Amino acid sequence: MKNYSINHQNKVKQLRENANYEKKVVHQILDAGLVAHVAFNQDDHPIVVPMIYGRENETIFLHGARKARIIRMLEKTHTASLNVTLLDGIVFARSTFNSSMNYRSATIFGVPKLIDDRDEKLHAMQTISEHTMPGRWNEVRASKDREIKMTGVIKLAIESASAKVSSGMPEDEDEDYEIPIWAGVLPIKSQLGIVEDDDRLLPNIEPSAAVLAMQNRII
Amino acid sequence: MKNYSINHQNKVKQLRENANYEKKVVHQILDAGLVAHVAFNQDDHPIVVPMIYGRENETIFLHGARKARIIRMLEKTHTASLNVTLLDGIVFARSTFNSSMNYRSATIFGVPKLIDDRDEKLHAMQTISEHTMPGRWNEVRASKDREIKMTGVIKLAIESASAKVSSGMPEDEDEDYEIPIWAGVLPIKSQLGIVEDDDRLLPNIEPSAAVLAMQNRII
Repeated sequence: MKNYSINHQNKVKQLRENANYEKKVVHQILDAGLVAHVAFNQDDHPIVVPMIYGRENETIFLHGARKARIIRMLEKTHTASLNVTLLDGIVFARSTFNSSMNYRSATIFGVPKLIDDRDEKLHAMQTISEHTMPGRWNEVRASKDREIKMTGVIKLAIESASAKVSSGMPEDEDEDYEIPIWAGVLPIKSQLGIVEDDDRLLPNIEPSAAVLAMQNRII
Repeated sequence: MKNYSINHQNKVKQLRENANYEKKVVHQILDAGLVAHVAFNQDDHPIVVPMIYGRENETIFLHGARKARIIRMLEKTHTASLNVTLLDGIVFARSTFNSSMNYRSATIFGVPKLIDDRDEKLHAMQTISEHTMPGRWNEVRASKDREIKMTGVIKLAIESASAKVSSGMPEDEDEDYEIPIWAGVLPIKSQLGIVEDDDRLLPNIEPSAAVLAMQNRII
């Protein structure tokens, strides 16, 4: 299936013309982002927490300290929701009403499950690490058993999902095009920079290949 | 009071050394961000939605189409939660376990209320507009009654809040400093760019002062 099926959960109700249910589009947004906002309930109140993540096919991995509230809560949650949003620009229309943002946004619903199996957990940790810092996993020392035990890893099989993508120029009311005011887009760019050395580097240590490859990358 | 009081709701439980309850710090993060992730419950399932916002003292304003699900849901919600996160860097430690992100993050809890009064609503809409595009409100044509009616505006008085701020270099295990591998930070920069003209500009229209002032601004 190329698309996520549309149901009560993932159906986009506002700005439907921006809705997109293609797996490819949802995956592209997830793969481009660095932080997901994950919602869960605490004492019947929804809370939202930013988390790093990784994706493998139709599974999202999230991690935190094993004892962290979010890990304990997600373990008990029936359905969790997360959103990844990338801002691409501020859209200046000729009225406030038609001004908006350009963005790529993906919303995922799924049943979170705590991973117990050590090998599966290590694989998930690697997937998250490779998402955030590709190539780094094999450069650093191996994870210790104690570290793996202290890490809580959640897998979330995508049950349903949708993307919302807005791009391009403002859409003004017909009569507003006669107003003599500038309109257009101010782009937003998120970009990785140039490495800054740790103060405690050993002598003659240069940035690794994985790190150099990430410099100046546009998110 | 300079600080938000710490209670069950806003107490930071993980990485407490990064927790900050100063109003000034929370406000700075809110004022720097462009998008808030707002959590609400739909059929007992938490959902998270990205929204633009504005702040005035201890009140956050959010808006959407009057008929939008999020506006109707927030209207009925007892307590809502929102988070604004700004990513500042990827922290490469000498192990995966100690690798992390540098960020500024603020989480707000409050009781959302729909604004009915027209003047109060217009003031809130102006606050949101001025947050996203400072100075633009007075450059564009005035909002029409129809537009104000079609907009749903929520005010959320901050009940409790916390910030979490992580900066600087990795903190490795003592023995890991002997591993001959590069460690440090790869900064992330979000920046506004250079204006792109709408295709339908009237002749001889230049970008307005408000727009020019935003060019190249770092978020």
